[in-house]
Amino acid sequence: MIPEARDLTAFFEPKSIAIIGASGNFDIISGKPLRFLQEHGYQGAIYPINPRYEELAGIPCYKSILDVPGEVDLALMAVNYKLVLPILKDCVTKGVKHTIIFSSGFAETGEEGKKLQEEIAQLARESGMGICGPNCQGSVNLRNKAIGGFSAALGVKPLKVGPIGYVTQSGALGYSLFSLAQEAGVGFSCVASTGNEVDLHTLDFVEYLLEDDGTTMVIAYLEGIKNGRQFARLADRALELRKPIVTLKAGRSAVGQKAASSHTASLTGSDATFDAFARQKGIIRVDDIQTMIDIPALMQRIPELPRGRRLAIITTSGGGGILAADEAAAMGLEVPELDADTQAAIMKRIPPYGSAMNPVDITAQVINEAEGFMEVLQAIVDHPEIDALVIVISQITGGPGRQMAEDIVAMSRKTHKPITVAWATSDALVGDNHRVLTDGEVQWYKSPVRAVRAMGSLMNYAAFRDSRVASGGATSAAAEPQATGQAEAARALLAGTDRTLTEHQGKQLFSLYGIPVTGEAVAHSEDEAVTIAQKLGFPLAMKVDSPDILHKTEADALRLDLDSADAVRAAYLEIMANAKSYAPDARISGVLVQEMVTGATETIVGVNVDPQFGPTVVFGLGGIFVEILKDVAMRVAPVSRQDAMEMIEEIKGYKVLAGARGQAKADVDAIADVIVQVSRMALELEDEIAELDINPLLVLPEGKGARVADALVIKR
Amino acid sequence: MIPEARDLTAFFEPKSIAIIGASGNFDIISGKPLRFLQEHGYQGAIYPINPRYEELAGIPCYKSILDVPGEVDLALMAVNYKLVLPILKDCVTKGVKHTIIFSSGFAETGEEGKKLQEEIAQLARESGMGICGPNCQGSVNLRNKAIGGFSAALGVKPLKVGPIGYVTQSGALGYSLFSLAQEAGVGFSCVASTGNEVDLHTLDFVEYLLEDDGTTMVIAYLEGIKNGRQFARLADRALELRKPIVTLKAGRSAVGQKAASSHTASLTGSDATFDAFARQKGIIRVDDIQTMIDIPALMQRIPELPRGRRLAIITTSGGGGILAADEAAAMGLEVPELDADTQAAIMKRIPPYGSAMNPVDITAQVINEAEGFMEVLQAIVDHPEIDALVIVISQITGGPGRQMAEDIVAMSRKTHKPITVAWATSDALVGDNHRVLTDGEVQWYKSPVRAVRAMGSLMNYAAFRDSRVASGGATSAAAEPQATGQAEAARALLAGTDRTLTEHQGKQLFSLYGIPVTGEAVAHSEDEAVTIAQKLGFPLAMKVDSPDILHKTEADALRLDLDSADAVRAAYLEIMANAKSYAPDARISGVLVQEMVTGATETIVGVNVDPQFGPTVVFGLGGIFVEILKDVAMRVAPVSRQDAMEMIEEIKGYKVLAGARGQAKADVDAIADVIVQVSRMALELEDEIAELDINPLLVLPEGKGARVADALVIKR
Repeated sequence: MIPEARDLTAFFEPKSIAIIGASGNFDIISGKPLRFLQEHGYQGAIYPINPRYEELAGIPCYKSILDVPGEVDLALMAVNYKLVLPILKDCVTKGVKHTIIFSSGFAETGEEGKKLQEEIAQLARESGMGICGPNCQGSVNLRNKAIGGFSAALGVKPLKVGPIGYVTQSGALGYSLFSLAQEAGVGFSCVASTGNEVDLHTLDFVEYLLEDDGTTMVIAYLEGIKNGRQFARLADRALELRKPIVTLKAGRSAVGQKAASSHTASLTGSDATFDAFARQKGIIRVDDIQTMIDIPALMQRIPELPRGRRLAIITTSGGGGILAADEAAAMGLEVPELDADTQAAIMKRIPPYGSAMNPVDITAQVINEAEGFMEVLQAIVDHPEIDALVIVISQITGGPGRQMAEDIVAMSRKTHKPITVAWATSDALVGDNHRVLTDGEVQWYKSPVRAVRAMGSLMNYAAFRDSRVASGGATSAAAEPQATGQAEAARALLAGTDRTLTEHQGKQLFSLYGIPVTGEAVAHSEDEAVTIAQKLGFPLAMKVDSPDILHKTEADALRLDLDSADAVRAAYLEIMANAKSYAPDARISGVLVQEMVTGATETIVGVNVDPQFGPTVVFGLGGIFVEILKDVAMRVAPVSRQDAMEMIEEIKGYKVLAGARGQAKADVDAIADVIVQVSRMALELEDEIAELDINPLLVLPEGKGARVADALVIKR
Repeated sequence: MIPEARDLTAFFEPKSIAIIGASGNFDIISGKPLRFLQEHGYQGAIYPINPRYEELAGIPCYKSILDVPGEVDLALMAVNYKLVLPILKDCVTKGVKHTIIFSSGFAETGEEGKKLQEEIAQLARESGMGICGPNCQGSVNLRNKAIGGFSAALGVKPLKVGPIGYVTQSGALGYSLFSLAQEAGVGFSCVASTGNEVDLHTLDFVEYLLEDDGTTMVIAYLEGIKNGRQFARLADRALELRKPIVTLKAGRSAVGQKAASSHTASLTGSDATFDAFARQKGIIRVDDIQTMIDIPALMQRIPELPRGRRLAIITTSGGGGILAADEAAAMGLEVPELDADTQAAIMKRIPPYGSAMNPVDITAQVINEAEGFMEVLQAIVDHPEIDALVIVISQITGGPGRQMAEDIVAMSRKTHKPITVAWATSDALVGDNHRVLTDGEVQWYKSPVRAVRAMGSLMNYAAFRDSRVASGGATSAAAEPQATGQAEAARALLAGTDRTLTEHQGKQLFSLYGIPVTGEAVAHSEDEAVTIAQKLGFPLAMKVDSPDILHKTEADALRLDLDSADAVRAAYLEIMANAKSYAPDARISGVLVQEMVTGATETIVGVNVDPQFGPTVVFGLGGIFVEILKDVAMRVAPVSRQDAMEMIEEIKGYKVLAGARGQAKADVDAIADVIVQVSRMALELEDEIAELDINPLLVLPEGKGARVADALVIKR
């Protein structure tokens, strides 16, 4: 179930903030929030609460939250963990809208803490009061200075305000990252540290920030998420809103996952699933805090997202251009050669040993002829097949460096195309020229790779986003299962089977969802077998149909390549006899007579269930591709048709389907249909089906469809 | 051929430096070297040369290099390109030992420049005078202040001296990187920018720096190298010396390669080959200038290389530890769980919600109980199964932060185990505590990933190095071909064949090198065919043996699975008849009667020739593995047995050989033998053989060997 959006207005725009356990030592956890609120100039009411003080920092101090005269939108709690629950009850009585619990001593400490935390969770559910934490470092709205946190990072003045929203599941690392981002000039709208997530959790904050008008990008440090389907809905909404989500998801590795699960209470789930999910939803996934800062730093300074993947690289040093081009290629960007006219215009302003192809190498000659640079920039910006510019400057210092910086700032004000700069030189040499860029709101980095990685992330995001919006696939509605009669019919069928369905029952189930299966029927006599055979046509396969005999080869109850009525007749008798002798007590409903599909490619479509994301669909080629190479593509259900096509093209063995080695191109459309329907089925029957594997799905040449040849379906 | 080592003593330790074209404007290219030499305090003789001045900066100025009274070890040239050749001739006359040509206008500008450059090259060859450049930014020995360059990066005071040697093929990017490295505290021994490499080239400088006692690591920015075999010899020597080579090799991508080949005169070669070479020789390859700085920054500050791949991560923030562990896993490091005693010792000093497993999460509680940290560090350093430590600090500031920094410095002085720190917090918060680490020669980074990447690079290097030294594979001698009679016999055989060898000739060639081939012989009559068949045993294959019929199936001149003397007799007649009717003019020597190998796995062993590295050996599985998945491993010849085993294990399909899906384990030792011998053969017959492909090499189960079943050999 996807929970309702939480109203966090009073959380981030509180008219009043109470600080329960406020201290007169303004350097400790319980003292810092009051100091920060005053120093940064919060305009709402502040209510320190501590029976030991009459007043604190010139403000009246109250014995209890119940004594506060006005309404309380947000209460911060920095008290011993044993006091938390009774005080929360007072907060409920008082009608406090939201609380943030800094205190630790809960689920992270063991069984006793877990129980206490569960009581808090129950209070939250019953009262409707929003509870953030416990064991968190709090939150802040940088715009109205509503500082509900104690991190030293919030004591730095001034805090840089901007359009980046930030949610972190790690308090210490989270605010460290915040401090580094502020140092790098990243401006934030709101920050939330979510701690143990007893009530308000990461996705609640992501949802609020996505809908916040002053936020253009949401970045999130994640260790595990509570509700994959909610995340999917939010990710779709983010695409609609054109607001990229950037995640640093820890726990990529087994050792990292182990550390993560000991660190937070949340289930971490499979990293492969998260990775597939990020790819499916256009979420920008990064591996390091540096990239997590580099991307929003650029985002906040560009006029709009790039409109595609075509990058121009302009460099004063051949080497810098090559490094940038290498990284662009690694990210899947295009670095298109410029057309002849543009090249000619550029060559007029650069020396003959420069290059106008792209990377455009203007050479260090720009030192002697600074005015040419602006014309080169203009020619590239005017080029319709360029979506963004990365300018790599190496050793241009002093006056010429300043001129370049000023030209770049001027150009970035004139064009909607995003521009960023790699100025790969020490501060000692570049001096104030860096500042010209920063003051002009042009983002710069000290490495070509970092510049391309940041710009490329936004280019790939924008291209993905456009592909989804163009196909209508980004709307939340499209991602929800539709009510049809199919699920009811399927449930009726499932009610009459054992836990493990027979092959024939499984195929009946697929047929209900319009998934093509091999032509087949169960024969209960030799004559019936022949009648079915004549309807299906030869060659045929025959096998025992029994819920109790899973290993048909072992039972010698399987015959292939039958090509005449006589052969069918003989096979019927043999299979029945062998099955009965193999398992005398087995329930045998007859012999399955089955169309044999020839000239097909074997593929596999399966469903796994992820603890966070629910059913996920896996696709791969049969045989060594899956068994040896683990060459599979995965997506979280529901899988759109576009997702399905991308899955098929993503596997390394795709060339086999595309017609390598002289084979006919396989019917990939038919595969996509199957994937989409399996995803829908897995979602609609989520409560009924535990396991589902089509192996093999036989795929015929283009236009000829696909057939489920065998399948395993196990009920919950 | 591998050139002799160049004696660069006078280049880097010149007793005198002449500056030809010296200017009185000390801010331009021709003026800066004199200023830099004086400002940094070079102690040798300086001879400015320019007919327009009597003296410069208080030093007598000469009209010509010929007028200089003393000997000249090194002459710098900053003159118009047209003057370069005549002045070089004067330098030869004068007996100048080395020159550095800053001037551009040579091969990088077109045909005329190329011709001029070739004349310079010839002068260098004839005279023996070392020439660096042209079109370079010069070189510097930071220890004796012999500054032969003009980059603004050399004007910063003081230049940080240290044990890192640096060679760059890009002047502008190269010295930009130098400036950033200096900013990051990296100390250098010598730097060389090589420009167009008319004479002295990258590997000459790498060789000098490897042998330099004050240099412990060589870093190199590369676009293309001239002599792969020389590089191989140097890389082996570097392993012996325990001096890591770090390369930033531009041109990973097609677009980057295109830009690189337009940027430098050097052939770029295949990036895949370079990558394989780096893996084979333990060269640390990085993709960004940041990593190119991060690794030497750590190297210069650790007491010795780590002794293995086992990393301990100590963190004050769970999240930071997880990110570090993820990166460690991605790099193939181990993050072993600590033993029970060590865990118990650690748990005594950290709160119960911390973790002693590894990552060791000491939590922010260290703020309140700083003395525990040193004990935790000691317990981990004492652990015999830990080779290095990465300490991740998030928001520990002020006094506790200082205490941590001091403890880390103290511990790093006590232990031989390398320690580095990720202090992921802004300068504003960490304040002077960073400096405690820096002053204590402890390298720190602002990101856990960067810290692990730097340490991990050295750990992987050390582990590789030890594996090579243990096997004796790191010595240069082992890498050189040995004189045997095989090459002579092979040349005699090749002298008697067409350009494309017949299958049987190819196998004879392999047999000369002890490479096992299918049992076979050419029959010239039915009776002879039967005699051969009875010797080989059934089943057999037979095919026409003709240099003119390559497509035997098309000619219907191939028979398989023959299992009796009669069948052999019939096959002989049919094949001869079909071959004659298919190609009446073909030279037919008879019919090849061949052992049929069953129960084998198909593999491929091939040889490519790289323009820089010469013969490279490629290995893969047959069928889709190579054709669809490009799943191959490559190494530069000569391939050691250890290299060969690593190639076999490196392919994704290795599981097939290791016995996946119930199959017997294949005879990988036999494959390794074939790879080693093919590599030797390719090297010894480099001048004779243009192409060589064993396809398939049939590999039998363990202990049963392998057989070349078919092969293509084409002569030059």
